Amino acid sequence: MDKTGELIFLGTGAALPSLQRNLPALAVRMGACWFLCDCSEGTQTSLMRQQISAARIGHIFISHLHGDHIFGLPGLLTSQQLAGREHELHIWGPEGLAVFLAGIESVTGYAIRYPLQVHEFSAPEWGPVDLGDFTVRADLLQHSRFCYGYRFDEKERPGKFDERQAEALGIPVGPGRSALVHGQAIVLADGRRIDPAKVVGPPPAIRSLVYCTDTRPCAGARDLAHQAAILVHDSTFSHALQQRAIETTHSTAVEAAQLAREAGVETLFLYHISNRHDEAEGEVLLQEARAMFANTRLSQDDLRWPLDRKA
Amino acid sequence: MDKTGELIFLGTGAALPSLQRNLPALAVRMGACWFLCDCSEGTQTSLMRQQISAARIGHIFISHLHGDHIFGLPGLLTSQQLAGREHELHIWGPEGLAVFLAGIESVTGYAIRYPLQVHEFSAPEWGPVDLGDFTVRADLLQHSRFCYGYRFDEKERPGKFDERQAEALGIPVGPGRSALVHGQAIVLADGRRIDPAKVVGPPPAIRSLVYCTDTRPCAGARDLAHQAAILVHDSTFSHALQQRAIETTHSTAVEAAQLAREAGVETLFLYHISNRHDEAEGEVLLQEARAMFANTRLSQDDLRWPLDRKA
Repeated sequence: MDKTGELIFLGTGAALPSLQRNLPALAVRMGACWFLCDCSEGTQTSLMRQQISAARIGHIFISHLHGDHIFGLPGLLTSQQLAGREHELHIWGPEGLAVFLAGIESVTGYAIRYPLQVHEFSAPEWGPVDLGDFTVRADLLQHSRFCYGYRFDEKERPGKFDERQAEALGIPVGPGRSALVHGQAIVLADGRRIDPAKVVGPPPAIRSLVYCTDTRPCAGARDLAHQAAILVHDSTFSHALQQRAIETTHSTAVEAAQLAREAGVETLFLYHISNRHDEAEGEVLLQEARAMFANTRLSQDDLRWPLDRKA
Repeated sequence: MDKTGELIFLGTGAALPSLQRNLPALAVRMGACWFLCDCSEGTQTSLMRQQISAARIGHIFISHLHGDHIFGLPGLLTSQQLAGREHELHIWGPEGLAVFLAGIESVTGYAIRYPLQVHEFSAPEWGPVDLGDFTVRADLLQHSRFCYGYRFDEKERPGKFDERQAEALGIPVGPGRSALVHGQAIVLADGRRIDPAKVVGPPPAIRSLVYCTDTRPCAGARDLAHQAAILVHDSTFSHALQQRAIETTHSTAVEAAQLAREAGVETLFLYHISNRHDEAEGEVLLQEARAMFANTRLSQDDLRWPLDRKA
């Protein structure tokens, strides 16, 4: 298991599901914390297929309130109640989420009794918020409906402890070594002061995941994506359908790639693929994007990708 | 293709989906008319897997407003809009359906523009209503929430035309024969009057499908199921869990079988199977029911069953 985290693409389609692509949902682990980006119809079953217990999901981040991004919420939340969940679940997203969920409860007469925290926002920017193993912030994107992109940053992790150097300096095994790893200087029995830098390498670069769908290429997405490790970006259409992308406030593969290049990301995932692009045409999107930004991947349902891995 | 009709089990589980059983949904064709009984999360994808275009669905009959029976409606209705549907879709079920659908439209800001007719009822009995290739009526069942069972009756079909007898009687090929098939007497050129009974056999027995979930065994279900060809009935639990069935207002396999026997149905399908019963335990349900009523089948996701076929 990758220590940093993992992405699991549960659904990578757009608007209309197909047998190849479910509607948008991405499961993410950062450190020990699991969350979802969007929750389309069928997400609870996709999680099962990936052997990820929904009970482990602590947070759900909703981009916007179009049906293809939220129609899996009622089922997942209800199933968690039936499965006996007692711990908190946080849902984050634009204003209207609470009304949506209250409406469902009222119609079905089925109350959620575990602590369900709905966090709504409406400002152009929101966060960063510290959620334990990661921080999150959101920026408004450019879509036909109020829609947010999210950036998830790992917490800084300690650098590598140099065992050999520690032995050479005569630092005994025990709490002193742990203190050094956590950035504290220690004083040995013989009175020598040891600074962490002597035995602990520099902290590894923070890995960041950015999730931007549905949107035109925009400043909000570019800002969020700045030097991120992984950008998952709207790529609904091929270049030939750019006019359609403009009309429907989505992006083409080329536009996603251009934004990835401008933002200096490491890896781009084309996401939210229109069902008019079959498997062969999906390859076209990939080629179009790679001509602009080499480190591009085409997202696929059920693809698992370590957060540490580069394209 | 069976001329009478066909059942396609899209989901046969209960409350919590599993990888073996989706939540309840049954696609039915009677004559040329397609409809759904319940519409659980994932129904639109299950239809695709069965190569049934959702555009062909003319009616959706909802048993009750618990989430596992309706959470596929928002996605299916929205997708039909996106797919350019222009013809009518009728949804039938208990009061509250319209509020549910209006709430979804309001939250997503996405209006359904094709003619969507929502028919709500709250009386203990409703119908029969003539819907072209079949008639439907509903009775209140016995569940923790207002819940309806449905009976679908084929229209009477003409009997078999006896070609040999027609030749012997000198009835020319043409509209006269068609009139006879449709029950009208004709007069031949030589003045002889021919009554339909001379060349047309008795009409085949009307096939009826009855859908009763979620419910305790009750008078409503028994009345609906009277001498039906096929009864699809709640069978959430095994006999060992009868107390649980009573507490949750569901039925055991044995109770479903007893009701099928009392009602004189031809074939019983055990349906709405709790996910605590795995494949082996599903066989236990079947054995328990068959001891009471031999013509019992265990429903399975993706099972197709001609309306004409007997267990």
